[in-house]
Amino acid sequence: MKIENIDVSSYPNSEKIYVQGNHPGVRVAMRKIHQYPTVKIEDGKRVEYPNEDITVYDTSGPYTDPAIEIDINKGLPRMRESWVEERDDTEVLPDITSMYGRERRDNPALDEIRFPVSHRPRKAKEGHRVTQMHYARKGIVTPEMEYVAIRENLDNKARGIETYITPEFVRDEIAAGRAIIAANINHPEAEPMIIGSKFSCKLNTNIGNSALSSGIEEEVAKAVWSCYWGGDTLMDLSTGDNIHETREWIIRNCPVPMGTVPIYQALEKVNGDVRKLTWEIYRDTLIEQCEQGVDYFTIHAGVLREHAQLVQERLTGCVSRGGSIMTQWCVLHNEESFLYTHFDEICEILNKYDVAVSLGDGMRPGSIHDANDRAQFLELEVLGELTEKAWAHDVQVLIEGPGHVPMQKIPANMEKQKVACHEAPFYTLGPLTTDIAPAYDHITSAIGAAIISSLGTAMICYVTPKEHLSLPDLNDVRDGVIAYKIAAHAADLCKGFPGAQVRDDALSKARYEFRWKDQFNLSLDPERAKKYYLDSRRNAPDADDRFCTMCGPNFCAMRISQNIAEECKD
Amino acid sequence: MKIENIDVSSYPNSEKIYVQGNHPGVRVAMRKIHQYPTVKIEDGKRVEYPNEDITVYDTSGPYTDPAIEIDINKGLPRMRESWVEERDDTEVLPDITSMYGRERRDNPALDEIRFPVSHRPRKAKEGHRVTQMHYARKGIVTPEMEYVAIRENLDNKARGIETYITPEFVRDEIAAGRAIIAANINHPEAEPMIIGSKFSCKLNTNIGNSALSSGIEEEVAKAVWSCYWGGDTLMDLSTGDNIHETREWIIRNCPVPMGTVPIYQALEKVNGDVRKLTWEIYRDTLIEQCEQGVDYFTIHAGVLREHAQLVQERLTGCVSRGGSIMTQWCVLHNEESFLYTHFDEICEILNKYDVAVSLGDGMRPGSIHDANDRAQFLELEVLGELTEKAWAHDVQVLIEGPGHVPMQKIPANMEKQKVACHEAPFYTLGPLTTDIAPAYDHITSAIGAAIISSLGTAMICYVTPKEHLSLPDLNDVRDGVIAYKIAAHAADLCKGFPGAQVRDDALSKARYEFRWKDQFNLSLDPERAKKYYLDSRRNAPDADDRFCTMCGPNFCAMRISQNIAEECKD
Repeated sequence: MKIENIDVSSYPNSEKIYVQGNHPGVRVAMRKIHQYPTVKIEDGKRVEYPNEDITVYDTSGPYTDPAIEIDINKGLPRMRESWVEERDDTEVLPDITSMYGRERRDNPALDEIRFPVSHRPRKAKEGHRVTQMHYARKGIVTPEMEYVAIRENLDNKARGIETYITPEFVRDEIAAGRAIIAANINHPEAEPMIIGSKFSCKLNTNIGNSALSSGIEEEVAKAVWSCYWGGDTLMDLSTGDNIHETREWIIRNCPVPMGTVPIYQALEKVNGDVRKLTWEIYRDTLIEQCEQGVDYFTIHAGVLREHAQLVQERLTGCVSRGGSIMTQWCVLHNEESFLYTHFDEICEILNKYDVAVSLGDGMRPGSIHDANDRAQFLELEVLGELTEKAWAHDVQVLIEGPGHVPMQKIPANMEKQKVACHEAPFYTLGPLTTDIAPAYDHITSAIGAAIISSLGTAMICYVTPKEHLSLPDLNDVRDGVIAYKIAAHAADLCKGFPGAQVRDDALSKARYEFRWKDQFNLSLDPERAKKYYLDSRRNAPDADDRFCTMCGPNFCAMRISQNIAEECKD
Repeated sequence: MKIENIDVSSYPNSEKIYVQGNHPGVRVAMRKIHQYPTVKIEDGKRVEYPNEDITVYDTSGPYTDPAIEIDINKGLPRMRESWVEERDDTEVLPDITSMYGRERRDNPALDEIRFPVSHRPRKAKEGHRVTQMHYARKGIVTPEMEYVAIRENLDNKARGIETYITPEFVRDEIAAGRAIIAANINHPEAEPMIIGSKFSCKLNTNIGNSALSSGIEEEVAKAVWSCYWGGDTLMDLSTGDNIHETREWIIRNCPVPMGTVPIYQALEKVNGDVRKLTWEIYRDTLIEQCEQGVDYFTIHAGVLREHAQLVQERLTGCVSRGGSIMTQWCVLHNEESFLYTHFDEICEILNKYDVAVSLGDGMRPGSIHDANDRAQFLELEVLGELTEKAWAHDVQVLIEGPGHVPMQKIPANMEKQKVACHEAPFYTLGPLTTDIAPAYDHITSAIGAAIISSLGTAMICYVTPKEHLSLPDLNDVRDGVIAYKIAAHAADLCKGFPGAQVRDDALSKARYEFRWKDQFNLSLDPERAKKYYLDSRRNAPDADDRFCTMCGPNFCAMRISQNIAEECKD
């Protein structure tokens, strides 16, 4: 299989820049948006006042760097490979460890869909832990930490904006478990990013096929597309055929950390028969994925046998796929969940590759009715206990959260999580603030996401308009990402995150001065903003652009406002 | 001109019902959604458990009542005409009062576009005030008050849901100025509705042409369309040609209260030359519109001459159309605003027709940068002063609010309004919580709208995806209305509004039981939800519908969850 390059055109009038760190390999990618000058007529003469470039956070990776030749069939440059090598605490394995992984590799029927380039996996040397938390606790500032410190600050320094974010601050937050850098040593293509409440709010996108739809090419396109529009991390939730091969294609072409829910693949391996799931199959799956380069695993280890009964009291039962699978397993076997009983062993696998654990909320509410109930809060206590366990193994931790929560119950949710889980970063799915708007759940949930992230949630998982109804397509991914970029940015403004308001101010100034192109280029979706404007102007004279069709020239407040300014001057 | 009837198909599997009040004319329209039964297999037999009908608030008027024949060229039934007559404090005028109105009527060139049916206007008898506030203060419960009390409660009584909303409660809230029923005696087609923080949160939609686009037929279609999707009130912000005739068409076919900004038409009368605006032209415009049946006027009487300088300190000046016009007028004439100096006279006109005043926020911030600044808050003080003046004339008052406000500044905004304006209902435009997403401002602002209405804002004015870019089309109106229905409903849930959660619970139960049709029918946009689901199922076997393509059958948490329930039972 050869995949054609995914077409993501560059953002207009902007350029990829790299900020050099102290570590020679640290070249932090950002996007610089150029602006047109402000034009004034003074004493009858046209005078131009330049407007400064605006630097924005850039998740699109090499795809928007014209200097890098992209070939989806080769994968992205492996930037972090040398950083990992330098630490000299890992080794390249002679072969992949997973039995299943070897089978897939050796199956000639899969040649057609296999990613064309193979890399041997890397693992910690015997007796070593290679997680960012491990280094942080030792007082080491890694290149990854320096990278994210620079990345979070954009051009704050040049603007004289005070910032608390230094490489040492990053290290301390990671050491304390309040932030994570998900960076598997086998995913050197990813650009480091940080998730923690004191950093800019991040957003995750979900892609992945299901038994009924979409193939590898489509999923890779979605991955690239999601990064292009602003997804900070990416979860491949594939549950259909060829999960192993699909994932390889995605990871090798993914400039952001990638997560999975390994139980999905484990279940596929037993043809969807929950009864046949075993710890051994799951363990092999973890190792398979660690060696492919997955950066974080959602593990529903907080779902216990005793929770099964609690769910029966609910309106919508258990709506977490992983949670429902594990609950069913516990009921069928009348045993405690193997994810819970083998959790230490899991952590000892993860710290060999630096895979973070995202503790799944199997008991998250699936409706307004079930929000903040006993099942949900009891599980949160268990997640707190598991957090401490993971930290004892130097494994970085995220805590997953709901779901469906009415606005008045969001603060209690956040508070409960902070206390029960010792300030480990919270990563929520929305939450949706009402159940009554299927086809618009990117909006019902953007409201909840903005509120909960303003209260300290570190990463929000996007919801697309297709939630509850079907698998999202490219357009849904774009709608979902932008809705969540909005929620995340609104939260950053609310938190007073250093530099957050620079882009708002620049765009508003451009708007006020009728610099239409700058208004578009500074926006989250330049293409769509421009289209809406131009479509309506098609029948309008273009000699004067100091208005839009919304109000027309005589009723444009900004136009009048500027006339007043002129009149006040006289 | 003959307009073809606007096609709004009925909501699926639901029926228009009328709840009879004590007053014989009070028949309150609601929509009852039927549900399919829950099917279970018990002892090998198929057993059906019925699901109750869900009654929802209905703003669509006669358009969704198959028993009423709609003819856009005749206008809607005039339900409230007899209520007004009964009060015996009004008289039908021999002719329309406005000079301009007569000119338009007598101009044969306008025959082609004039609404075909003419009604003589009605006005309070000499010495009478005919506002709902006037009656409320006298202790009278009007049919309008009874209507809204029934309307707010839906079927709460039948469900045993406790409610504080009685006709007497409505009366007392109106008497205190904390709520309004905007119901011009010349708009008897409108179904009464109430705006106040103790009632369900309402949403306003804006339509109206501008100099560059759209004609009468299109604007009437937008009006009907906006009511169909859930708009509670409607503002006609036309600024282009034939404002008078466009408005007549809309009012005669509008089942919800309609508002305008009279200064727009006044300005059109002087060909957009602010210098030529006079109190006399404005006054004639007010009377012209009072007699057509406009239910509330946005009047920017709080914009004072001294504010002009304050605006110069801003990033985006004055972004209120009406505000900027009046500021310019003050500067050009070096005089105080005639809206402010003639405010008592304005009120004495309004209380003759029961037109509410919506005190415009001419100084609302147009960017995150300008939020909660001195100009905005100073104006709010003036609006408080004008509120008391209006109340002295028994005129009902709304206070308009921003605009662009970051999340952390929203509570202060709400608090300031409550105190400065003596708890008169707040009516905000969003607010947008960030400036960086043109083309998605229905989302940036739905976040702010949900938050501010949960804190007590009584009505939120929708923003469409085209805000800042162009005039919205039908699709934008739909997107804007649904985004704001979501915000309003999320706020109602948050406030614990009686009965608000009934629909959420019903939809969630339907979702959990894979009653797809019920899930669609109970949603805010059944058509779109159904389309998204069906499009994806086109290639899927339809024998089993206990999943969607998002997760596929093996990974549907709800399906697994129900299997667990079965297994737990065994």
